[in-house]
Amino acid sequence: MNKDNQEAQSAQNIEHIRHSLAHLLATATLEIFPDTLLTIGPAVDDGFYYDMDFQKPLVESDLKSIEEKMGDILKQWSKLPDGERGFRHKEVSVDEARALFANNHYKLELIEDIAKKGEAITLYTCGHSIDTSAQPTHPKNHIPEFTDLCRGGHVEDLSEIDPKSFKLTRIAGAYWRGDEKNKMLTRVYGIAFGSKDELQAYITQQEEAKKRDHRKLGRELKLFTISDLVGSGLPLFQPKGTVLRKALEDYLWELHEPRGYSRVWTPHLAKADLYMTSGHGMHYLADMFSVHGGTSKEDFYVKPMNCPHHMQLFADNQFSYRDMPVRYFEPATVYRDEKTGQLGGLTRVRSITQDDGHLFCRVSQLHEEASSIVDIIKTFYGTMGMLDGYKVRLSLRGDDKENYLGSDAVWETAENALTEVCKSKDLPYFEGKGEAAFYGPKLDFMFKDAIGREHQLATVQCDFNLPERFDLSFVNEKGEKERPVVIHRAISGSLERFLGVMIEHFAGAFPLWMSPVQTKVVPIGERQFEYAQEVQQQLRAKGIRSEVDLSGDSLGKKIRNAKTEKIPYVLVLGDKEVETKTVTIESRTGNEGAVSVEDFLVRLKSEIDGREL
Amino acid sequence: MNKDNQEAQSAQNIEHIRHSLAHLLATATLEIFPDTLLTIGPAVDDGFYYDMDFQKPLVESDLKSIEEKMGDILKQWSKLPDGERGFRHKEVSVDEARALFANNHYKLELIEDIAKKGEAITLYTCGHSIDTSAQPTHPKNHIPEFTDLCRGGHVEDLSEIDPKSFKLTRIAGAYWRGDEKNKMLTRVYGIAFGSKDELQAYITQQEEAKKRDHRKLGRELKLFTISDLVGSGLPLFQPKGTVLRKALEDYLWELHEPRGYSRVWTPHLAKADLYMTSGHGMHYLADMFSVHGGTSKEDFYVKPMNCPHHMQLFADNQFSYRDMPVRYFEPATVYRDEKTGQLGGLTRVRSITQDDGHLFCRVSQLHEEASSIVDIIKTFYGTMGMLDGYKVRLSLRGDDKENYLGSDAVWETAENALTEVCKSKDLPYFEGKGEAAFYGPKLDFMFKDAIGREHQLATVQCDFNLPERFDLSFVNEKGEKERPVVIHRAISGSLERFLGVMIEHFAGAFPLWMSPVQTKVVPIGERQFEYAQEVQQQLRAKGIRSEVDLSGDSLGKKIRNAKTEKIPYVLVLGDKEVETKTVTIESRTGNEGAVSVEDFLVRLKSEIDGREL
Repeated sequence: MNKDNQEAQSAQNIEHIRHSLAHLLATATLEIFPDTLLTIGPAVDDGFYYDMDFQKPLVESDLKSIEEKMGDILKQWSKLPDGERGFRHKEVSVDEARALFANNHYKLELIEDIAKKGEAITLYTCGHSIDTSAQPTHPKNHIPEFTDLCRGGHVEDLSEIDPKSFKLTRIAGAYWRGDEKNKMLTRVYGIAFGSKDELQAYITQQEEAKKRDHRKLGRELKLFTISDLVGSGLPLFQPKGTVLRKALEDYLWELHEPRGYSRVWTPHLAKADLYMTSGHGMHYLADMFSVHGGTSKEDFYVKPMNCPHHMQLFADNQFSYRDMPVRYFEPATVYRDEKTGQLGGLTRVRSITQDDGHLFCRVSQLHEEASSIVDIIKTFYGTMGMLDGYKVRLSLRGDDKENYLGSDAVWETAENALTEVCKSKDLPYFEGKGEAAFYGPKLDFMFKDAIGREHQLATVQCDFNLPERFDLSFVNEKGEKERPVVIHRAISGSLERFLGVMIEHFAGAFPLWMSPVQTKVVPIGERQFEYAQEVQQQLRAKGIRSEVDLSGDSLGKKIRNAKTEKIPYVLVLGDKEVETKTVTIESRTGNEGAVSVEDFLVRLKSEIDGREL
Repeated sequence: MNKDNQEAQSAQNIEHIRHSLAHLLATATLEIFPDTLLTIGPAVDDGFYYDMDFQKPLVESDLKSIEEKMGDILKQWSKLPDGERGFRHKEVSVDEARALFANNHYKLELIEDIAKKGEAITLYTCGHSIDTSAQPTHPKNHIPEFTDLCRGGHVEDLSEIDPKSFKLTRIAGAYWRGDEKNKMLTRVYGIAFGSKDELQAYITQQEEAKKRDHRKLGRELKLFTISDLVGSGLPLFQPKGTVLRKALEDYLWELHEPRGYSRVWTPHLAKADLYMTSGHGMHYLADMFSVHGGTSKEDFYVKPMNCPHHMQLFADNQFSYRDMPVRYFEPATVYRDEKTGQLGGLTRVRSITQDDGHLFCRVSQLHEEASSIVDIIKTFYGTMGMLDGYKVRLSLRGDDKENYLGSDAVWETAENALTEVCKSKDLPYFEGKGEAAFYGPKLDFMFKDAIGREHQLATVQCDFNLPERFDLSFVNEKGEKERPVVIHRAISGSLERFLGVMIEHFAGAFPLWMSPVQTKVVPIGERQFEYAQEVQQQLRAKGIRSEVDLSGDSLGKKIRNAKTEKIPYVLVLGDKEVETKTVTIESRTGNEGAVSVEDFLVRLKSEIDGREL
């Protein structure tokens, strides 16, 4: 079994464990609250839940009892003889099912739905089949059995589940079938992993994530503002957040410029015609904001992506093969609509600033161009300290070739080019057959942040469709019109989302080159105010983003404040520093002693130029 | 009489001349085409026109005949005795007027309108009252007389008008009363100035302007693209145009950063709530684009200005008097609607990128802050070579104080502060009493371009209104909430319009620091290709935007191409240059001989750093 298959297998195992635990949760709940009506209980990303209709409201403290009961039952089930430690399934008729769940109108509703679709009705049973003829001698000897309407997907042996590998976490309200016109049920959430250690690691990660929450840090570090008057998903960047945005944008441009990219600028509005030509008008309307002129009464859309505009830039030139590839770069904000309830912080927004770029090249140039983009991606994520354990998905065409656009020859060349890049650049890649877009193969990059969470960020996508729809061409060596291929590429993806990830990745303590405030000058008292301002000016003259604390606060408070603001270098100035024209450095690692301002500037410059972490 | 009054007087004189010439145009036309029906003929910005209903279509060559006839008649009129060389006016009854214009339904329509409004009907007559009893002995002796329905505003003596100071320029179609449902009339345009020299200067300026037309140069130099699919007034910037945009934006930021400004970033959409709070929702809706979400179904507006967003950035802080002034800078694109027919090139657009900024300060800080903005404006326009003959309008409150918002004390302080700035900065200013906005006094800057056309560009506006509407405050020394004043400021105004002005100001030959391509390396033949690429790399490594011409064209053609592209420095490389490791410079002023690449780079750096013209 290769690594990919192993991973897929392990993902399936953990889903089976989580699904089995949902059944266990239901069993334990019924033991304690026998009148509860069960509805549905699936596995989810980090565990499982069950939506239930309780006779009286469940409180947080009940979770502990249910969790303990789950442990007890699991222990009993794990000791059952062979053949009884798994889930037994049985297909029943609609009438049998109706009879079995006669007292539960939720399940009856589900049964009618399955019957209507003409699908088979299956029951899954776990636990001990109680011999009803024998009275249990003691409640402790009672080993429950539980049968649920279910489609399957459980562990083969319940003793596989480590009783310390799961935990009930919280209660939430959930409407029956997600419809707010229905009754509000009680959802009990649990988390579950393959082992106790994995569970503990997840809990630690969650706690760490909470501390690093970019919404909380964004407020504390005064990076961005969500305004009720402006609206959800439309963050406004405060001066410090704007420094971060600009630092990223400038760095990205610095990586693109020497590789032959040109910056372009396109407006945020366009007529429907543009999106009818590109095809977005047919398939993407729900995500788009429509616009209506107050005077002209004309209709437009806010651009949901930059590609169609960039096609128009290309089209307004008469390029020859000597001009190819043509490379456009535009860090531009596009707008996509989502429901208000789904918006939050910087990661779920309506205003999305893409570090967007489009390359127009010949099919034969795909390999070199994709290589060059991969270089940018590796350099960029290396700088961010995110190359540990990253993964790349190479999405290829499936066997249903008729569902993809473009000739076999073009697909083969493009897929080979991307595969070659994966190999020659030594990328940790896996193939996703059938996962290509209908318009071309692609590479997607998944990077892990400082606390191990994976984020899909960079992408390189070949596109045989847009050049066709916009009838783009250049003149080749034979004087004939030749159709270019387009490469869509994004390095950080969306600046907003990426900043959200970065705030949490660095826990707000950004590397020097990104830091909104790079140094804070802290005179011990008024006697050093003049020198402090002098130092401050020296730093600013060299382009260092610096603040000076001239408040009447105590030295301790001033240093604490600067540390809370996560400023990389605090420069403490007392009489000795004034006398010797030095600064005493309090860095993130502690007191580093006194150095001259000149030496400190050399150190800062080298750290900034090297974009050190 | 002071200078302002003299200017106003002279402006009135020229308007009177133009209006008189409209009457003369009508007189001459009737002499040649007696059946023509006259409608209206006003003075306009650079001359006058008359809309007429001709019996047969007028052709361009008719203009010459009419113009000559105008000259003849003017000469005759100028020789008339005292009292007959001006316009005699007479008030008539509605019936008298109806009788006089019985054969002209256009004039009758106008008469009915005047009658309906209950206004007086006046006739103006110029020329000789012909003695009908005496038969003229010769057509040449016939001196026409002309009476028109008119409100007045003519020269006192027709001999004041220099027959060489005007010219008929073109014919255009114009609907009667501007309504496309009405008949299309023929509009004859003339231009007129105070003297023959002024006319000639204007004609020269117009010819020069035509050559410099930014729409034409924009296409030729491949700076921007107007796309039918994207829409009118929404220019897309090609790579070379984007270099210009970015150069300006970077320079503006360079001027703001050391003066304590912080960059901010705000989204392009906002809810109606924001504009109801700011007041734009009540008074500015016709100019705004409304937005509707595809999924959320929520309504928004595209921002028509940045101020309301910036108020929200300020509001999300708890500032103290020690933090004041707070200065935000955001080069952001706002969108304003106009009728499609009124859009063109970069100067009439719907996408307007403002080099916007808002300052929040105490009333007592207005003087210093306005001073600092004026410094930026003078530096910026000095760099552009536009400080010759610039003017500043200081707009103050009128006597109708009840129409302005804010206390007398605040207005007095603010008006004094701006007046003081005008004086201390030695600005060529004039006062516009009653021209302040209702929310505060302001300074507007008018600059002349290279061919003498005046453009209103920079502005500094005090605002007592928005801080009130958004209930902004900071905590003062007494621990009380104090309301700040806002200063709106724009240096270039709109980047699009400013670029349009700059393209024409420099006729596409931008100063080195702005030039999209700064040098072009031109090897004489293939023998120098390798050295050419080496030179090219040396230049690029130092951040010089450089191209190399490796085509098979002749040297002459290669140099001509580079000159057409208005590239500041063409570097010609022959065998001698390869041997001596030099480049021969063809600058805009001609051949400057050979220098080493190192020396050339030193020269470039100094010219760029100094932003030399």
